[in-house]
Amino acid sequence: MSPPPRDTLYFPSDHRPFLEPHLPPPNLPPPTPTSLPFTTLTFATSLDSQLSLSPGVPTALSGPQSKAMTHYLRLRHDAILIGVGTAVADNPSLNCRISGAGGYGGEGLMGQPRPVVLDPRGRWDFGARSKVLELAGSGRGRAPYILTGTEPEKEKREILEGAGGKFIRIRVTRVSDGENKVEWKNVLRVLSEEGLRSVMIEGGGAVINSLLQAENLPLVNSVIVTIAPTWLGVGGVVVSPPRCHDDGGNPMAAARLHYVQWHPFGEDMVMCGKLIP
Amino acid sequence: MSPPPRDTLYFPSDHRPFLEPHLPPPNLPPPTPTSLPFTTLTFATSLDSQLSLSPGVPTALSGPQSKAMTHYLRLRHDAILIGVGTAVADNPSLNCRISGAGGYGGEGLMGQPRPVVLDPRGRWDFGARSKVLELAGSGRGRAPYILTGTEPEKEKREILEGAGGKFIRIRVTRVSDGENKVEWKNVLRVLSEEGLRSVMIEGGGAVINSLLQAENLPLVNSVIVTIAPTWLGVGGVVVSPPRCHDDGGNPMAAARLHYVQWHPFGEDMVMCGKLIP
Repeated sequence: MSPPPRDTLYFPSDHRPFLEPHLPPPNLPPPTPTSLPFTTLTFATSLDSQLSLSPGVPTALSGPQSKAMTHYLRLRHDAILIGVGTAVADNPSLNCRISGAGGYGGEGLMGQPRPVVLDPRGRWDFGARSKVLELAGSGRGRAPYILTGTEPEKEKREILEGAGGKFIRIRVTRVSDGENKVEWKNVLRVLSEEGLRSVMIEGGGAVINSLLQAENLPLVNSVIVTIAPTWLGVGGVVVSPPRCHDDGGNPMAAARLHYVQWHPFGEDMVMCGKLIP
Repeated sequence: MSPPPRDTLYFPSDHRPFLEPHLPPPNLPPPTPTSLPFTTLTFATSLDSQLSLSPGVPTALSGPQSKAMTHYLRLRHDAILIGVGTAVADNPSLNCRISGAGGYGGEGLMGQPRPVVLDPRGRWDFGARSKVLELAGSGRGRAPYILTGTEPEKEKREILEGAGGKFIRIRVTRVSDGENKVEWKNVLRVLSEEGLRSVMIEGGGAVINSLLQAENLPLVNSVIVTIAPTWLGVGGVVVSPPRCHDDGGNPMAAARLHYVQWHPFGEDMVMCGKLIP
């Protein structure tokens, strides 16, 4: 067997136990017609709750330990999901580079999660040279499933299916302000029908803020946020859900966690918890 | 001696050591003509970096331990400073209710910090019934020093001086967008001239965001932030300094901490550190 690639990541075993209660249980049973996947919402922000300085600008926020943790979390999920904005802006790899995963010292595609791109209107202009497809081609990751409400171009379908991915049709509604709205329950059901028992939802801002809305909180099983001790300053990509009001019309907190655990990671902090539904 | 008031707070001694490296050293020497006070910037935010749902709306963010910590921090500073927005919106008490402080089981005004209100244009319409003045009148706090660039009304001056406070003139410049700008170095120098060796800067948003600007970072000695595991949602009072750019015009992080320590406090997290100047 060839040695693992140079960009292989190592996540020390003593960092793993604190994450365990917040991860999908090992050996989850296969999906049933009514089950939904275990969902973990995870991202890294600055102290001013920003994911990046602006969309697509690589922003050194958290340290190397945090990067390795992200890849360890990917190892522990059947799928990882991002929104189309992130796919367009970042040309992401969406694979797992932890030592022992398939292509990184492990056999086949063992431990490689299925990338899922939520692309309601078919905006993602990927090609065979997109990172995620190159990695799939070289056996270091899986080809993506693209969830969309539109009919894909024939050429794109061929590229995607040739690499082992596919388009999957989902319901998309266009709401009054011109935005596309997906029903998260429908999205998760579709993933379950594909045999995916767990999904790590990584971003970007639009996806996260949508899941932090009251109606979607019960769909999220676990939240893992890395906080870096830096303020990016006004103008970046902010995590902050839409405002909520109580029955009297007064503003109230949009979302709150319980069963919270904090774990230091160098100068960063990792916070795990469950959303109060 | 009468028993301490019912609203006396207790901050357990086992929570104190972790704060010690981030506090003004005990027995600071008296100010010299060139010295500036030790400054601690401290506040509590939600995960989406908000101080409150909107200005003046009491927002249950952090738990009771965090409240007691704030009062312990007040005990450890000669002065506490807030901006006029907070004074107007909150009618704050600005005293120290920790057991053992003056008025709370202690003699005289021992441990009671001097409240300082930064009110460049004389907006604060206080009176003898304002909380901070009532507390001063009943021996449970000191009367405020109000830093202003305007000439105060005679009646206000009499109320304030009668309670043991005073107006102090500072330089205020009106910048192009109509906002008032104070020079923080001048503000701190004025406090030093009053014999105040340390100041805890508590808010609100405008004051904090101003101090987190590049030019002011060297003036802050210590940062103590409590983070509560909740998202308030878009529309509240946000801590996020103005955007910064590097020499090439690219956006860059506005402020970063080093020597960071994190300390769990119930479900909240307290982060202490120093700003990289």
